[in-house]
Amino acid sequence: MSLLTVGSVAFDALETPFGKTDKIIGGAATYITLSASYFSTKNNLVAVVGDDFPQEMIGLLQEHGVDTEGLQIKQGEKTFFWSGKYHNDMNSRDTVEVQLNVMAKFNPVIPDSYQDCQYLMLGNTAPAIQQMVLERITKRPKLVMLDTMNFWMDIAMDDLKSVLKMVDVLTINDEEARILSGDYSLRRAAKTVMAMGPKTLIIKKGEHGALLFQGDQVFFCPALPLEDVFDPTGAGDTFAGGFIGYLASTDDISFENMKRAIVYGSAMASFCVEKFGSERIVGLTQEEITARVQEFVQLAHFQI
Amino acid sequence: MSLLTVGSVAFDALETPFGKTDKIIGGAATYITLSASYFSTKNNLVAVVGDDFPQEMIGLLQEHGVDTEGLQIKQGEKTFFWSGKYHNDMNSRDTVEVQLNVMAKFNPVIPDSYQDCQYLMLGNTAPAIQQMVLERITKRPKLVMLDTMNFWMDIAMDDLKSVLKMVDVLTINDEEARILSGDYSLRRAAKTVMAMGPKTLIIKKGEHGALLFQGDQVFFCPALPLEDVFDPTGAGDTFAGGFIGYLASTDDISFENMKRAIVYGSAMASFCVEKFGSERIVGLTQEEITARVQEFVQLAHFQI
Repeated sequence: MSLLTVGSVAFDALETPFGKTDKIIGGAATYITLSASYFSTKNNLVAVVGDDFPQEMIGLLQEHGVDTEGLQIKQGEKTFFWSGKYHNDMNSRDTVEVQLNVMAKFNPVIPDSYQDCQYLMLGNTAPAIQQMVLERITKRPKLVMLDTMNFWMDIAMDDLKSVLKMVDVLTINDEEARILSGDYSLRRAAKTVMAMGPKTLIIKKGEHGALLFQGDQVFFCPALPLEDVFDPTGAGDTFAGGFIGYLASTDDISFENMKRAIVYGSAMASFCVEKFGSERIVGLTQEEITARVQEFVQLAHFQI
Repeated sequence: MSLLTVGSVAFDALETPFGKTDKIIGGAATYITLSASYFSTKNNLVAVVGDDFPQEMIGLLQEHGVDTEGLQIKQGEKTFFWSGKYHNDMNSRDTVEVQLNVMAKFNPVIPDSYQDCQYLMLGNTAPAIQQMVLERITKRPKLVMLDTMNFWMDIAMDDLKSVLKMVDVLTINDEEARILSGDYSLRRAAKTVMAMGPKTLIIKKGEHGALLFQGDQVFFCPALPLEDVFDPTGAGDTFAGGFIGYLASTDDISFENMKRAIVYGSAMASFCVEKFGSERIVGLTQEEITARVQEFVQLAHFQI
């Protein structure tokens, strides 16, 4: 089934305890589509870049089967840029610089050929833009998933609550679940957040795994304990891309299949953190992914 | 198979965001033996209390099948007392007061009838006392498990390293694993700690679950996401008691059975935090435990 991803394609500059990068390709939609490309055969992208964005990076997305008809290239303008620095524990980071550039006026145009998408992933951008996308899609997709962050809860909570009413799956981290619900207990927070709209909630806990909530059901997928976490940038988006890519490829949105999708998403995220930026999720083989998923089976399974 | 637990039996006074207690029964060995009593049929206890320790509390242990021949009652002396206050997130606490009392001169005497124990649990006390117990047991048990804490790493690291060479299973939390190994990555920390002696290492992560390491194998058991965590006191000891009690009852120390034991230990810990002190792990039914373990199956299992 076809998947449409809307979000940022950007330049990042990163510093971790292991080193630093110059400008490398980044952005939520980049990680999501690259990750989803290993599962979903029809990957459509709506995003915007400036004319400084290298053609070979667009070629890289295309090599991964991503349809870039919806990628707007703004002549005379610059691509969104973010730079950040991770603390020693890799669990927290500071934003060093943000240049919104083309993202400041992002007007998501949905090509006609994308209108039949059955799975829609709204990557982290302003909630008003996410809602605009939903209003511009003529036929409601089978599943709409939205990612957001604490920044929007601080400056655009009303917009966020408005778009939350229109989505099926929400992904946020544990801190954001607590902010959004006003409740420290994640179990109670999940109830509160699901009452805002999304029937399914994924709470990402980074190195501590991810929780999947739907009604009274709850599933937990651990993160793979790795010897080295090199760079966490994009891990959440890679996770989301693996999750929705797996759902789109199997076209099964049952809770049991969402459990599998969480495991595939977690496996993709475990690759992502092994190298800088998106380096490790470019050119993965199906054999590597299958072997990694088996590590999750070994990690989590027991017989009672 | 018979289980011997050596450790503290104490009074605690607790304050959490939900309320506070007067002196209630506490101590590592109390939680361990109560928890293990639901699995192991022969539970022996070596500990020391003062003459202020209520007879009905000893009766409570006996009602749970705990043999108290090894519980020394020191006339004219007072029981070990600890009081602590939890922060709002329940993940950290301050020690308000410690009165070592009888624990200051704890001389663990092993009754002859305990010498045949096949499973030995060394609850958190001074490493020198833990080693003394091992030297006083004439026949090496089939499995020796040790719990310790950062306090001993600060003031008695050499003693701790000495006793670690003599044990099979070590339980510590994630912070302690990082201190003991000097490594932030838990995967690498586990290798370093296992090279110190214990072939099996359990790293407890509180609300984030527990990791079991043995050689190159790793297993993860989540904590049950609860609506309310009322009081975390004793959860780690209750976990350890469930773990070793299950191993003793099945007399199977394979890695596969240790996985099951971790799940049973986690189930017992999930009860413990639901009420103050040991209140919730007194008088549990097998039906409650079986149902709780099934919640862990639901939480963790997926089919690939």
